[in-house]
Amino acid sequence: MKRELFDIPEGVIYLDGNSLGAPPKHVAERMQEVVKHQWGTRLIRSWSEGWWEAPQRIGDRIGRLIGAAEGQVVVGDSTSVNVFKALTGAVKGTSRTEIVCDESTFPTDGYIAQSVASLTGLKIRAAHPSSMELTEDTAVVLLNHVDYRTGALNDMKELTEQAHSVGAQVVWDLCHSAGVLPIELDALNVDFAIGCTYKFLNGGPGSPAFIYVPKHRQSTFENPLSGWNGHREPFAMEPSYEPDPGIVRARVGTPDILSMLALDAALDVWDDVDLAELRERGLKLTALFREHVEKLTSLEVITPEVRGNQISVRCPDAKAVMDELIARGVIGDHRPPDVLRFGFAPLYVTDEDAIKAAETLAEITR
Amino acid sequence: MKRELFDIPEGVIYLDGNSLGAPPKHVAERMQEVVKHQWGTRLIRSWSEGWWEAPQRIGDRIGRLIGAAEGQVVVGDSTSVNVFKALTGAVKGTSRTEIVCDESTFPTDGYIAQSVASLTGLKIRAAHPSSMELTEDTAVVLLNHVDYRTGALNDMKELTEQAHSVGAQVVWDLCHSAGVLPIELDALNVDFAIGCTYKFLNGGPGSPAFIYVPKHRQSTFENPLSGWNGHREPFAMEPSYEPDPGIVRARVGTPDILSMLALDAALDVWDDVDLAELRERGLKLTALFREHVEKLTSLEVITPEVRGNQISVRCPDAKAVMDELIARGVIGDHRPPDVLRFGFAPLYVTDEDAIKAAETLAEITR
Repeated sequence: MKRELFDIPEGVIYLDGNSLGAPPKHVAERMQEVVKHQWGTRLIRSWSEGWWEAPQRIGDRIGRLIGAAEGQVVVGDSTSVNVFKALTGAVKGTSRTEIVCDESTFPTDGYIAQSVASLTGLKIRAAHPSSMELTEDTAVVLLNHVDYRTGALNDMKELTEQAHSVGAQVVWDLCHSAGVLPIELDALNVDFAIGCTYKFLNGGPGSPAFIYVPKHRQSTFENPLSGWNGHREPFAMEPSYEPDPGIVRARVGTPDILSMLALDAALDVWDDVDLAELRERGLKLTALFREHVEKLTSLEVITPEVRGNQISVRCPDAKAVMDELIARGVIGDHRPPDVLRFGFAPLYVTDEDAIKAAETLAEITR
Repeated sequence: MKRELFDIPEGVIYLDGNSLGAPPKHVAERMQEVVKHQWGTRLIRSWSEGWWEAPQRIGDRIGRLIGAAEGQVVVGDSTSVNVFKALTGAVKGTSRTEIVCDESTFPTDGYIAQSVASLTGLKIRAAHPSSMELTEDTAVVLLNHVDYRTGALNDMKELTEQAHSVGAQVVWDLCHSAGVLPIELDALNVDFAIGCTYKFLNGGPGSPAFIYVPKHRQSTFENPLSGWNGHREPFAMEPSYEPDPGIVRARVGTPDILSMLALDAALDVWDDVDLAELRERGLKLTALFREHVEKLTSLEVITPEVRGNQISVRCPDAKAVMDELIARGVIGDHRPPDVLRFGFAPLYVTDEDAIKAAETLAEITR
């Protein structure tokens, strides 16, 4: 519990950290330093005083939170762009014919998969993680670790093994699980993973996403977005693209330093977090909220027992109910057609927040 | 001349605004407001209080500087990513067989063009803008408005007409010309344009790039990076990608708001700039520097008369000479193998800066 490190406005119960994490207090000051000193005083020199390597350095910081040893994670671009890199890289040169996509996925993953299929000539097939029916035609499976609507947690070990058993690769989307529970990408032999940093990691609005490419895949990974930042000698300005031998090849263009260094600052609060303890606290908070919703309202909780840090509640007129919740200081969000979502970031949400939110929901819907 | 609006450190002559523009003074304060109030106090609500539409709104601000009427420019992603969107969009569905790429291009454009060619099955051919030999096999030509090494300015009208005369499309890279001279994308019937915002526009390190897709091409433009931000109903979370009918379809993932709103603040200084006057002042500054370099040194100026805001000087041992210039407070950069680059941002570089820089160069190389 690190609530004192966060800026949460007086009178607000913030249960939307699964959409936009709250800012750690020191981020504002760090941004002053970056704008005034690094950009303003040092100017172009800052590129050789830490900016150029920031995507790898910050990638390693995230790596520690997702079970990836150093040199396998790089930060930059949006989640959508990283899905494109991972999927296109995974199917490049394959003779297999299909991409299987989690049918309950956050839409952007599916939209990007459609484009990758269209560009590479593969077919796309939507399937539920519980019944994917993979075959030797399956080149790659794109899966969400935690479902954005229901909060259901998929079994990374089992589904990765299922893909590997037919020789398929797997791309895991960690948007709703990074910063929620211990993840073991290396140990589970995951092929690729991507995720955003502005939810439970609190990196700031639209902060850069990350991509994980394990060591043993790096030399064969072809980044379709072969920008100069991924070149083995970017400042040689050579006419031909020769990728860096390591994770740097997953970089594309010049990184958005202000957003990236805000994320860097935000990650400071994670340095001494024990992910197992954090997970326990997240489970406690979501259980507490669920218990009170079920006791105080007649609404259906659609989040299954095996879950992330989110409780979703089916509610007719979800938009109007959420508007009223927000008017009363309880901030969550809603997803069509009829789902209220409540995210419980264990770093700054209290037990009292969870109970008070359920009580307010009950008042509005009774 | 708006030097008083910029933070230029005491004792520094800053001639690298063609690589990283200097910060307007008020950007630091604006970032405080964005981090503390918009992110901190308003939290998720800021997405509906201006963040979501920021890429189009800021795109329109840039549109005014490049001759694009409203609704045709959108900001987001890196330059490399936008080259990928424009080129892939341009060749989608074509029966033509080649992409022609400016052989003197900044490398990332060529690297991305190679990837687009590989993904779409077209061939790539490098050619100098003065002898492109376009044919009815040419699907698209990728050109730089100003050459990053020499500072040479290409003739946008003539080269666009040349491409159109064989039925080819043209993608213009405006990285080194936006904020340098009046540009007339609409009037010249340009097909696509992209550019960065961290050079003469002073948007900040790695600030988001822009893409221009003219009205009449928008309904057929297929963005290969079909992320949810480009969907016609992004919050409907539909399983199928249906692009927005307008420029919004060029968006991809969640925009990096901190970097984007720093750019937004930086653009304030452009509101009352007369681009014709700015151009005159840029030509005067570069002429002054050239004159003094030619008078005081024996080095060869390789920038032709028809130029952007940059003077490039051939110099053996360019790296060592630039290191010494920087040690003496004159900040430019160098490009392999033997080019010193000096950029003259007319908003904050003075005549005295230009003369003093030439004198310092003469002291070092005499």
